[in-house]
Amino acid sequence: MSQRTLLLLSQDNTHYERLLKAAHLPHLRILRADNQQEAERLIGEAHILMAEPARAKPLLPKAGKLGWLQSTYAGVDVLLDASSRRDYLLTNVRGIFGPLMSEYVFGHLLSLTRQLPLYREQQQLKTWQSHPYQGLRGKTLLLLGTGSIGQHIAHTGKHFGMKVLGISHSGRERAGFDQVYQLPALNKMLAKADVIVSVLPATRETRHLFTSERFNHCKPDAIFFNVGRGNAVHEGDLLAALRTGKLGMAVLDVFEQEPLPADSQLWHQPNLIITPHNSAYSFPEDVAQIFIRNYIRFIDGQQLDGRIDFDKGY
Amino acid sequence: MSQRTLLLLSQDNTHYERLLKAAHLPHLRILRADNQQEAERLIGEAHILMAEPARAKPLLPKAGKLGWLQSTYAGVDVLLDASSRRDYLLTNVRGIFGPLMSEYVFGHLLSLTRQLPLYREQQQLKTWQSHPYQGLRGKTLLLLGTGSIGQHIAHTGKHFGMKVLGISHSGRERAGFDQVYQLPALNKMLAKADVIVSVLPATRETRHLFTSERFNHCKPDAIFFNVGRGNAVHEGDLLAALRTGKLGMAVLDVFEQEPLPADSQLWHQPNLIITPHNSAYSFPEDVAQIFIRNYIRFIDGQQLDGRIDFDKGY
Repeated sequence: MSQRTLLLLSQDNTHYERLLKAAHLPHLRILRADNQQEAERLIGEAHILMAEPARAKPLLPKAGKLGWLQSTYAGVDVLLDASSRRDYLLTNVRGIFGPLMSEYVFGHLLSLTRQLPLYREQQQLKTWQSHPYQGLRGKTLLLLGTGSIGQHIAHTGKHFGMKVLGISHSGRERAGFDQVYQLPALNKMLAKADVIVSVLPATRETRHLFTSERFNHCKPDAIFFNVGRGNAVHEGDLLAALRTGKLGMAVLDVFEQEPLPADSQLWHQPNLIITPHNSAYSFPEDVAQIFIRNYIRFIDGQQLDGRIDFDKGY
Repeated sequence: MSQRTLLLLSQDNTHYERLLKAAHLPHLRILRADNQQEAERLIGEAHILMAEPARAKPLLPKAGKLGWLQSTYAGVDVLLDASSRRDYLLTNVRGIFGPLMSEYVFGHLLSLTRQLPLYREQQQLKTWQSHPYQGLRGKTLLLLGTGSIGQHIAHTGKHFGMKVLGISHSGRERAGFDQVYQLPALNKMLAKADVIVSVLPATRETRHLFTSERFNHCKPDAIFFNVGRGNAVHEGDLLAALRTGKLGMAVLDVFEQEPLPADSQLWHQPNLIITPHNSAYSFPEDVAQIFIRNYIRFIDGQQLDGRIDFDKGY
């Protein structure tokens, strides 16, 4: 069998090179490009890319030997526009973000329900004063997206005694969910939800799914999370809903434009929490494992894990 | 069968009176005392008390007909000193605090590991900047106490992929724990723990269990929680450990003296979080359910749930 060339295009190249060389994968030559110039020079040799999607995108027209691109991220939407190449296998990383996403969602949720910032302020003032609160038990969690991340968050919700509802394309039953519905049921489900979490990818169907019309169906004290993709939410409408009390609180890790511009009005909205797209992180150890499994399948001509359907967008 | 008189001695008397009257318990007359004067007047009639321990304590010598005291709290240590009466059945509330305690511990823990206060500050400054973090998966959680609260926290730890170790009087295996050890193993276990949680009750054996000598065995970045009883920790030694970097962080909900005095040096220690003994709360609906079940057992002459052994102290 002939040799294959892998080109690494990631901020973690050093780490990936060490992990993949240690795996002694058969027939694999590993190259790395740490800057634009190196990338331009080496891209023509690569049969395989292991890359952050945004780094790979401008190089695709010159990747004459490309057969497979393993994204180091979950989000590959920059590679999906209609004008981009589709004549290669595209895989993303899946199944490793659920635990970290759950930690993010429940860390923020419990910090809010148990008012940790308030007790922090009280401590500064040496104030011993307890405030009423409610537990998560019996509350309703609505998840938009029922894939591996959604399922993990659903299981965590069940662990804390919540009722867990889901919305997905198919409406198929999924582990961890009490009920799963299709999109037409969304408004009705929003009216029941105490906590709403979107883990939706960026597709045509999910763009601006959350507008004023949606927020009007929410409970006024509901907490809304977006840990999927920024364009699922109309940010101006979200801000209006938070200002007018249609929605109690929002926690956003993703935005229509990232980094969030300094002049965005979102920054100073008191009932809105902003984090810099870090609810989950691709630990190189985990991503390398996924690549190694997929590489064996690739040379055996088997189906790869995490394969993206360019039409569906996930 | 003759009538029994129950006297309510709680801040939630109105709520309890409504819940218990709605249950139409047989042969039960329900009285309430909302202040000291009423309590002094009615205490002699009570066969049963449903009370906060500190409210009941000064009245015990005058409770001539007392057969059973149902505490509305888990902590009954004020009723256990050697000079107090022991000629009645004492029961506490158990089994309802685990979920709330888990929410408290994991809310604080995730807020720390995911640096929520830092991102809050960054948001004020419109700063988009991500910082490295580690997930809980693979970290070691050490629980002091393996009763119903400890078991619930253990299950939550397992849900988040942690290794869970326990210390208990018996060292018996318990659901949710990978291993349970007896007290002599504590120092060795402290050296392995990333997160340490004490849910110990106040007994002679647990008093000042955590001294400088113990903290010297901890990992320097360990996070220490006390959600049991304040006297398990020597507060001066804890403060020294936090100041000298023997311990990374502490989260305390209970203290040797409560409310924590304004002149305590604990208030301003930067790597110490203080909350006012509210990690769990006795929701009247839950406590009333426990009383109702126990009352049926009481009139049938059966063993009561949550019975305290005055010698053991739990």
